[in-house]
This record gives sequence, C-alpha cells and structure tokens, in this order.
Amino acid sequence: MRNIKLTLEYDGGRFEGWQIQGKKHRTVQGELKKALKRILHEDVTVIGSGRTDSGVHALGQVANFKTSSSFETNKIVRAMNAVLPDDIAVIKAQEVPLTFHAQYDVQWKTYRYTILNRQARGGLSRDIALFFPYNLDIKLMKEEAKSLIGRHDFKSFQSANPSNNEQDTTRTIKKLSIKKDKDFIFIEITASGFLFKMVRNIVGTLLEIGSKRLKQGSIQKILKLKNRHFAGPTVRAHALTLMKVEY
Amino acid sequence: MRNIKLTLEYDGGRFEGWQIQGKKHRTVQGELKKALKRILHEDVTVIGSGRTDSGVHALGQVANFKTSSSFETNKIVRAMNAVLPDDIAVIKAQEVPLTFHAQYDVQWKTYRYTILNRQARGGLSRDIALFFPYNLDIKLMKEEAKSLIGRHDFKSFQSANPSNNEQDTTRTIKKLSIKKDKDFIFIEITASGFLFKMVRNIVGTLLEIGSKRLKQGSIQKILKLKNRHFAGPTVRAHALTLMKVEY
Repeated sequence: MRNIKLTLEYDGGRFEGWQIQGKKHRTVQGELKKALKRILHEDVTVIGSGRTDSGVHALGQVANFKTSSSFETNKIVRAMNAVLPDDIAVIKAQEVPLTFHAQYDVQWKTYRYTILNRQARGGLSRDIALFFPYNLDIKLMKEEAKSLIGRHDFKSFQSANPSNNEQDTTRTIKKLSIKKDKDFIFIEITASGFLFKMVRNIVGTLLEIGSKRLKQGSIQKILKLKNRHFAGPTVRAHALTLMKVEY
Repeated sequence: MRNIKLTLEYDGGRFEGWQIQGKKHRTVQGELKKALKRILHEDVTVIGSGRTDSGVHALGQVANFKTSSSFETNKIVRAMNAVLPDDIAVIKAQEVPLTFHAQYDVQWKTYRYTILNRQARGGLSRDIALFFPYNLDIKLMKEEAKSLIGRHDFKSFQSANPSNNEQDTTRTIKKLSIKKDKDFIFIEITASGFLFKMVRNIVGTLLEIGSKRLKQGSIQKILKLKNRHFAGPTVRAHALTLMKVEY
C-alpha cells in the first residue's frame, strides 16, 4: 500500500465544489476519483485538504489517496492529466508516509482574493475577479487588517447560515497582505484554517472599511462582538483561489 | 456630429474574431454595434484599430464611431457596459477630433503572448496561456529576439495562407520583452503594425530557439530568407492578448 499526495489546480467556476454529492453534480473529488479509476483500475478514496465551495478556484489544493496498485508514482502526473478534463490538472504527485492525511495534517492554508477596482467592469477577468467600482483607501485597509493577525475567535466572520457552522471558531491568521497591481487588488491570507466563508467575509468587511462605509477600528470591534451580523457582506466565490496548503 | 474613441476589453475565446461576418457569427464589432444601437438609437459604423482573430483577447483594443446623437460622452462607458454581454467591456470613452481614425492613425500596437512552461498542464490558465512543457533557454531567446528589433521585412513571419497576406511586409518592432514569473513566460511585442499571424509566428520561432530545435543565429537567417517556410510553427491564438494601441 502506498500513500500518494497530489497538488492540484482547477477552475472552480466549472465545478459544484470539491465534495462528491451524487452523480448529477460535477465535483473535483468526483473527477479525480474517476481519473484514478481509469489509470489504477481501482476505487480509491480521495481526501482533500478541505472542501472548496462552488466557484472557488485552486492553484495549490492538496489531496491524498492510498493505493495498492503498482502504477509508478513518477508517471501519475502525466497519466492523470491525460484523462482528467481540461479544467482540472495535477501539478505534482509524490509518495508520502502512510500516516499522511491531507485534511488532518494541514498546518497553514493560503487563499487569495482578487478585486478589479476601477470605474469600468472587466471583460476578460469576470470569472476570476470581483468588480468593485468604488474608491478604496488601501492604506486604511492594511492598517485595519493588522487586527486580524494572530489567534482570535473569528465567530463574527463565520457563515451566516448556522447549519454550516463549526463549533470551535478560533483560528490563527499568520499573514494578511493587500497588494495593488494596476487596476487589481490582491488580498492574500495565510491561516491555520478557515471557517466556512471566512475569507469572503473578511474581504467583504475590508472593502467596507476601504470604501469608508465602516469606520477605522471596526475590525477590532467586530471581532469582540462575536456575531456575524456586524461584519461586512460575503463577497462572491468566483474571485477566491486556494493558493497553497502547507504541512 | 461627434467622433468617440473607445478602449475595449474582451475575452477573445468567446467571439469569432473582431469583424462582423453576418448574423450567425458572434463578433466583437457586431456586439458593439448592437449595444450602440440600443443606447444611441442609431446605426453606427464601429472602426477597430485592426481585426483580432478568433480566440485573441484584448485588454486595450481601440475603436471609434461617429454619432449625431446627443448622448453624453461621460455616460457612454456605464451605459455600454450595462447592455454589452459580460465577455466584452468598455474601459474608456472619449470625444476625439472628427479626423481620428482608429485603424489608419495607429502608431504602435502592443501584443502579449502567455506561455505556461512546466511539466504539468494548467487547470485554470487553459484559456489564456499556451502549455509548453519543454525546457526553455530564456537567455538565448532574449539574445535571438534582438535581431527582430527595428525596421525589417517580416515576410518570413507572415501567415502561411497566401490569401490573407499583405503586399507590404515591412514593419518596425520597437520593443520585444521576454519575462518569466514563476511558471509563466510573457512575450510582449510593440510594433508599428503586425502582419496577419506575425506575433504567433514569432513566438513559435522563439520557442524553437529556446528549446534548442533551432540554432542560435536562426532568426537573422530566417528574416533574410523572406520565406514563411523557415520560421517556426504558428502558436495558438487563445494565449494572445492585444494590450495597447497608441496613436
């Protein structure tokens, strides 16, 4: 038995999320399982680092599966990319100890959110960026974002739908960067883990700060209130990309 | 009568090129004409800086049209973006002298070609980048590209299909840059004009150089031979973007 770790890239806009949900739904996990069946002639369980929602892209999602097949590890990338559809690709495949678990062993995850910040909407970036036409005070956003760094109870930034919510809402944000490149703004967050919709709620709140709909100091207050009601809106999933998973 | 200059962004993969070809074909010019009819209640002629082929994207295509409507210039961007489909956007609209002609007055055009250069194909960049898995000697490509700078007869880099070919094949390349950013390589060319398929033939030739299928010094020889047969293959259109048109 071998344990294989895969690094994956996919276009989230073309899947109904990560997790297999039955035959009618096209999911990343489902496509991987089908491809592996074709090359290994075996039914495997594909474990992802976490579910990505419908619409969320990945440039560095990680998954693992165990196999008793003798198919050579160094041929997996090419073989899988030949049978997978064009909106999903395996970037890397490596053998790891049998104890490795793509979900439980995560140390840090990095997500990037992309914003097109100008008067006119995009024609080419519509599937990867959020169009936000209002002026943004990026210096203020950076200043406010500092309050999110560290270990906090992120209850205010969890999903508004209680059925999806985790019990333990404490997470650690290691890094949060906001960068501008021409008309685009990139918000990149590295954390020990993310609550469901947490990145999108943080970005929605930072946009309210940057556009002066929320006052300076709001983030610290929102964190303390531990109530989803006070944070900004959940921004769209299609501008979010899972960049990296570290173990 | 006013003359309006438009700056446009579009996803070339969703159009059968720029030029109106009849009702069955979805073209950029056709969509612009329809949108202008809706907001100006007038049939206008939209003149582009040049045709982009099917698949070729634009972040800075330029067009102009003349109108006798009193519709305010500063409301054109918002009005057009409200009626245009989501794969085409107007970035800027400005009134220009009646003598301005988007095609005849071009001074410089800049195109960018994007290459994904790694072992594994992409899952997210398939519509904007060419997958090229072979090792590339970028230093050599840069060195060779220098032979293309300046005023030359680019007959060797014209389309292989003679029915599309221009009589005068002399053009001036002002700038050619090759940049690497992680797994991506960007080739950007600024010229007084381009022959049909010229950028894609130059990129195809530079890839042959970089992957050592063509020897150092080849570009100079190919230019002198003035025969399409000796240049590299025409690379795919979907990785090409019209970045800027200068007047």
